Amino acid sequence: MSDVEINITVSVDGFVTGPDPGPHQGLGAGGEPLHDWLEHPAGRALSAATFAAAGAVVTSRTVYDVTSGWGDDGFYHMPVFVVTHRVEPPVRKSDTTFTFVDGVAPAIAAAKAAAGGKDVHVMGGASIAQQVLAAGLADRLRLHVAPMLLGAGTPLFAGGAPAALTHVETVDTPSATHITYRVG
Amino acid sequence: MSDVEINITVSVDGFVTGPDPGPHQGLGAGGEPLHDWLEHPAGRALSAATFAAAGAVVTSRTVYDVTSGWGDDGFYHMPVFVVTHRVEPPVRKSDTTFTFVDGVAPAIAAAKAAAGGKDVHVMGGASIAQQVLAAGLADRLRLHVAPMLLGAGTPLFAGGAPAALTHVETVDTPSATHITYRVG
Repeated sequence: MSDVEINITVSVDGFVTGPDPGPHQGLGAGGEPLHDWLEHPAGRALSAATFAAAGAVVTSRTVYDVTSGWGDDGFYHMPVFVVTHRVEPPVRKSDTTFTFVDGVAPAIAAAKAAAGGKDVHVMGGASIAQQVLAAGLADRLRLHVAPMLLGAGTPLFAGGAPAALTHVETVDTPSATHITYRVG
Repeated sequence: MSDVEINITVSVDGFVTGPDPGPHQGLGAGGEPLHDWLEHPAGRALSAATFAAAGAVVTSRTVYDVTSGWGDDGFYHMPVFVVTHRVEPPVRKSDTTFTFVDGVAPAIAAAKAAAGGKDVHVMGGASIAQQVLAAGLADRLRLHVAPMLLGAGTPLFAGGAPAALTHVETVDTPSATHITYRVG
């Protein structure tokens, strides 16, 4: 069975970007160090293992636009479902096909069907993560907590219903603490 | 040298209490599980070791009022400095003296002087923690992250300046992940 995992990097004060994220600073003002952990071999290994468990990705139109679909190398190497109100034909880059879907629930359903029994990773942005949680569609929450206070930016959590989490695992790499919870 | 450590329990979504904290529900609506980790032997041992490193405590008037000074058993067993605009004579309970100080900076200074070279622990509430961070008076931030989403309540962080943190240690106990950072 596919588990749906929200998989996202966040500052200690809960921001997934600094202020004013956009095409020229995808992580917002001051937000670049959020992803420092991916520069370290241990972080890259953790990221690779995480990706290896996934069979499909759900992400937002904003993340897709800001990252230009993760470049022409088809970074994901698996089906990616982009949540958007502006549905357009699928885009294929290398071995990654980006399919545009109007709504979080149909995107998750399509990703589960495409994941071949592997997990579905929800890789941002914050709004998609919140919608997946609110819809009760998340099985796991994996936070990569970067050692910084951003003070402002895009909050990962912005209200929402209370939920019990069950701690699964904590791993430290040189620039992040990676905590996995089961939702519920 | 005394280090000043902000030492506080927080939900995964960054709340130190649920909604409507008050004398009858110090941790707010739904917030009681925040402190579940103190019910486990491993959590109690971690708490005891943390307390053993401290020579004085700084806390808020609200926390003092809500907890009634932690009861007549003088729970802290060390000097406690209560930040308040309503300064009154010190209160002695068992071997704990509660001294009322108008302002975070003088409270930290008084606590350092009283700590006998041991650390000063800032034990809430959120506003005091924020003021200590904003004033550049915090040396360490120790978060006891409880496995729950509260959705609403008292946020630990509410803006403030960006700050780099240096990860020191992560420890898991049955109902919390305890992460220590050095500030700066």
